Amino acid sequence: MRSEDSIIYGRNAVIEALRADRPVERLFLLKGSEDGPIKTMLREAKKRHLQMDFVTRERLTQLCGNDGHQGVVAFVAAFSYVTVEDILKRAEERHEEPFIFILDEIEDPHNLGAIIRTANASGAHGVIIAKHHAVGLSPAAVKASAGAVNFTPVAQVTNISKTIEMLKEKGLWFVCADMDGEMLFQMNLSGPIGLVVGNEGKGVSPLVKKHCDYIASIPMCGEIESLNASVACGVVAYEIVRARMKQS
Amino acid sequence: MRSEDSIIYGRNAVIEALRADRPVERLFLLKGSEDGPIKTMLREAKKRHLQMDFVTRERLTQLCGNDGHQGVVAFVAAFSYVTVEDILKRAEERHEEPFIFILDEIEDPHNLGAIIRTANASGAHGVIIAKHHAVGLSPAAVKASAGAVNFTPVAQVTNISKTIEMLKEKGLWFVCADMDGEMLFQMNLSGPIGLVVGNEGKGVSPLVKKHCDYIASIPMCGEIESLNASVACGVVAYEIVRARMKQS
Repeated sequence: MRSEDSIIYGRNAVIEALRADRPVERLFLLKGSEDGPIKTMLREAKKRHLQMDFVTRERLTQLCGNDGHQGVVAFVAAFSYVTVEDILKRAEERHEEPFIFILDEIEDPHNLGAIIRTANASGAHGVIIAKHHAVGLSPAAVKASAGAVNFTPVAQVTNISKTIEMLKEKGLWFVCADMDGEMLFQMNLSGPIGLVVGNEGKGVSPLVKKHCDYIASIPMCGEIESLNASVACGVVAYEIVRARMKQS
Repeated sequence: MRSEDSIIYGRNAVIEALRADRPVERLFLLKGSEDGPIKTMLREAKKRHLQMDFVTRERLTQLCGNDGHQGVVAFVAAFSYVTVEDILKRAEERHEEPFIFILDEIEDPHNLGAIIRTANASGAHGVIIAKHHAVGLSPAAVKASAGAVNFTPVAQVTNISKTIEMLKEKGLWFVCADMDGEMLFQMNLSGPIGLVVGNEGKGVSPLVKKHCDYIASIPMCGEIESLNASVACGVVAYEIVRARMKQS
């Protein structure tokens, strides 16, 4: 386990952190702001007897290092990564077949956040990211996840291919999205499954691809050869949701 | 028609602009860079007898106003918006039933770019955006579209609801994604269609929603109540692709 930055910002991210009972240590709000979301935050913060500071916009920007704070910054106990075993246990506790996202070198924190949000929404039990050549749970990723990091656990591993092999032994099979695969809409994506998401520019690396059981092709009807990484991930994830809904 | 910024940057964005024969006026490349994508750019630029400048990283950052240029900046003739009629004509010329994206106040240029990229990939004939309270074809949006803006036309309108009503008279029907709708996977999304995408925080505005024929609910299996706007758009767009593939 390793800790990451302990500042979160943005309205949705902070409200979800409070609701998920993350250990918020201190809350900074823009002086004079009084709209709905801010009132919700005040209410949640009061319930928890949190220390609140009303400060200027400049101070908020200084605290989080950019101006995307939407009038709210929170100091929280650092995010912890879980282990791959923790993610498998989560599926077991819910009596569900494992559904795990494996990210092969996602570099953009907005994509990482959007993908964790998709993992939560699609009912995945966790997200596995690489320790190297990849973005971690930075404040920007936490914000982009709109609070999903509070609910969907993230594990960091040194070797994605080895992790895939280990999970195969536990009965999971693996699908990645790439151009030269089988048509996505004709695949049967049911059962214990790992969804491998490739890098923004380079796609899934050849080595990791070799470890996947199936390659799914998303139909490309125009001139552009690929979708944004988090959009592609969402399209395949919801094919998995569809397959799981049929099963149950 | 109105013009927008005329600087594009980022490798994919510039390569696609060259390939789409956009009127690139001048190309700035990082001094000393020699990898594959840069060589492709040089080849394409030479074919077109473009003026090329090899400059420092600092100069590139200064030219495009941020450091996301990936070693390449291009000056191009400004992007032009098309009219809604142009988009309809495009469908007609292809002998296809119209498929149009309508964006209700998307604020984030990365989302706008990713959505235009999805529009191209899913075979939509164009994208309609609002003139006010929304982001336009900024350099960041152009970059995030990975070149899709060169192929998929974008129209700007003052009143989204009126445009929807006008398009309804032309035979289109409209679907938006929201929480209180019909289950997405059970809908029949075939025929001439408009896909309405809501704002990142607020979703589709109540007025615009009233003009939609159907509301599609994407199943939310976790704790989070919504997907990232461009991911949600991708999930619904590919349900439309699926319906269109069945038809043909």
